[in-house]
Amino acid sequence: MSNTTELAELSANKCFGGWQKRYSHKSKVLDCEMQFSIFFPPTTSPDIKLPALYWLSGLTCTDENFATKAGAQRIAAELGIMLIMPDTSPRGDNVPDAADGAYDLGLGAGFYVNATQEPWKDHYQMYDYIVDELPSLISKEFRVKDKAAIAGHSMGGHGALTIALSNIKRFCSVSAFAPIVNPTDCQWGQKAFTHYLGDDKNLWADYDSCALMRQQGQFLHIPMLVDQGLDDNFFHAQKLTKPLEEVAKEIGYKAEFRYHPGYDHSYFFISSLIEEHLRFHAKYL
Amino acid sequence: MSNTTELAELSANKCFGGWQKRYSHKSKVLDCEMQFSIFFPPTTSPDIKLPALYWLSGLTCTDENFATKAGAQRIAAELGIMLIMPDTSPRGDNVPDAADGAYDLGLGAGFYVNATQEPWKDHYQMYDYIVDELPSLISKEFRVKDKAAIAGHSMGGHGALTIALSNIKRFCSVSAFAPIVNPTDCQWGQKAFTHYLGDDKNLWADYDSCALMRQQGQFLHIPMLVDQGLDDNFFHAQKLTKPLEEVAKEIGYKAEFRYHPGYDHSYFFISSLIEEHLRFHAKYL
Repeated sequence: MSNTTELAELSANKCFGGWQKRYSHKSKVLDCEMQFSIFFPPTTSPDIKLPALYWLSGLTCTDENFATKAGAQRIAAELGIMLIMPDTSPRGDNVPDAADGAYDLGLGAGFYVNATQEPWKDHYQMYDYIVDELPSLISKEFRVKDKAAIAGHSMGGHGALTIALSNIKRFCSVSAFAPIVNPTDCQWGQKAFTHYLGDDKNLWADYDSCALMRQQGQFLHIPMLVDQGLDDNFFHAQKLTKPLEEVAKEIGYKAEFRYHPGYDHSYFFISSLIEEHLRFHAKYL
Repeated sequence: MSNTTELAELSANKCFGGWQKRYSHKSKVLDCEMQFSIFFPPTTSPDIKLPALYWLSGLTCTDENFATKAGAQRIAAELGIMLIMPDTSPRGDNVPDAADGAYDLGLGAGFYVNATQEPWKDHYQMYDYIVDELPSLISKEFRVKDKAAIAGHSMGGHGALTIALSNIKRFCSVSAFAPIVNPTDCQWGQKAFTHYLGDDKNLWADYDSCALMRQQGQFLHIPMLVDQGLDDNFFHAQKLTKPLEEVAKEIGYKAEFRYHPGYDHSYFFISSLIEEHLRFHAKYL
């Protein structure tokens, strides 16, 4: 840990023998003050480099939803995994938001891309924030292993999958709940990408899990687990999960896709299966 | 289950193989529309009478806090226990609230008493609602065992303890996190009881765990578990937990009081220990 910190600790709550903490820091990449949450598992030695999992949340979420609703700390404490929970977009009075206050664009809806269009491009650089700036900060401030796991839900499942597929040397494994896998071909993705990336759909492929998996082919590979509730209202409406499974089958990409009758898009679904996701990542961390 | 229902189902989310549901109903006792939440564990037979635990929440909470934050469904599913989560006060436009909008009086702060004073007495009858009206409704609508467990947090810990101590034939066991145990001798309790019950402190003893335990003596007994975080800001300020342990020691009342370094008043504390509470109640249910 460095002597000077760029972090302000906002809160600290003991939890399952470890600590759930919340921090604020100045992000250069996003040009704003950002908050994130971390769960520190109980450790016997401060010198051990901890395995870490990045959790990317969905539309409307902040860094706090997963921390309060998923019940992941219990199993992270048992497995000794640090959980790192970033926010879902840049924040603050200077950061532009959707003109009509829509939940699926602007604040809370960064889509983990680097925006190229006005008025978004000055702040909406969430891809670089998650891939570079935040991990650099974490490595500087805390003792963590070089390779991390990454997981997420819905828009955050899209973020986890695209980031993992584009950075297979940086991440050891990826998992997702009800992910947007084909944003170039669903309403949420098309709206966001048009605003953030412009009209040239060739440029969208860099942030589309289906396109990335197809590019990568069966020869490069990162362990992947995807869970989907069959009573999720967005499953068909936003073409979640299934298109990626079809690409995986077509090109022979090894990944596990599971479908669960009765489960919906909520944190009640995530909390029911998060233990299996953490145990999956623990095998590779 | 009856053919006609007094319940409107507001939501249903599959969770750990069971169902987290939310209902609305017209309460006669409180003279308003009320919401409550239930977790139904997965069951093999609809004819089995399920063991049930009532969870009473603390100040500012609704029926949803415990449902989303405690992570109790996992273990309730395993043990086959139904969780019943009432709201913390009457609700609605016609229900009086604290004139200054204070968090510790009025809406969200019913204190599980039957108010005798204006303007509270027409609606604030939470004791009768929890002890009689809601259990009658639950028994009519669902198959549950006659004796239930009861537990709660802070103001809800006060509710659970006072209701259990006053109704040891109706409840099999009681547990609490950071309970207000001596409301006649702490700021929260004195404020609420003055408003709801008036100035005659002799009448307050019916809703004071310390007084009730002393009355009941060591000869009547209900199994009791109390957990308290030692870094809880309200532990000393509101005299939580400790005065009841002193009464228990003094009169030889068997109960378990546990103190936990580092833990605070939040749901991160509750989630860390809820499994032990459910396993405690399962022994008696």
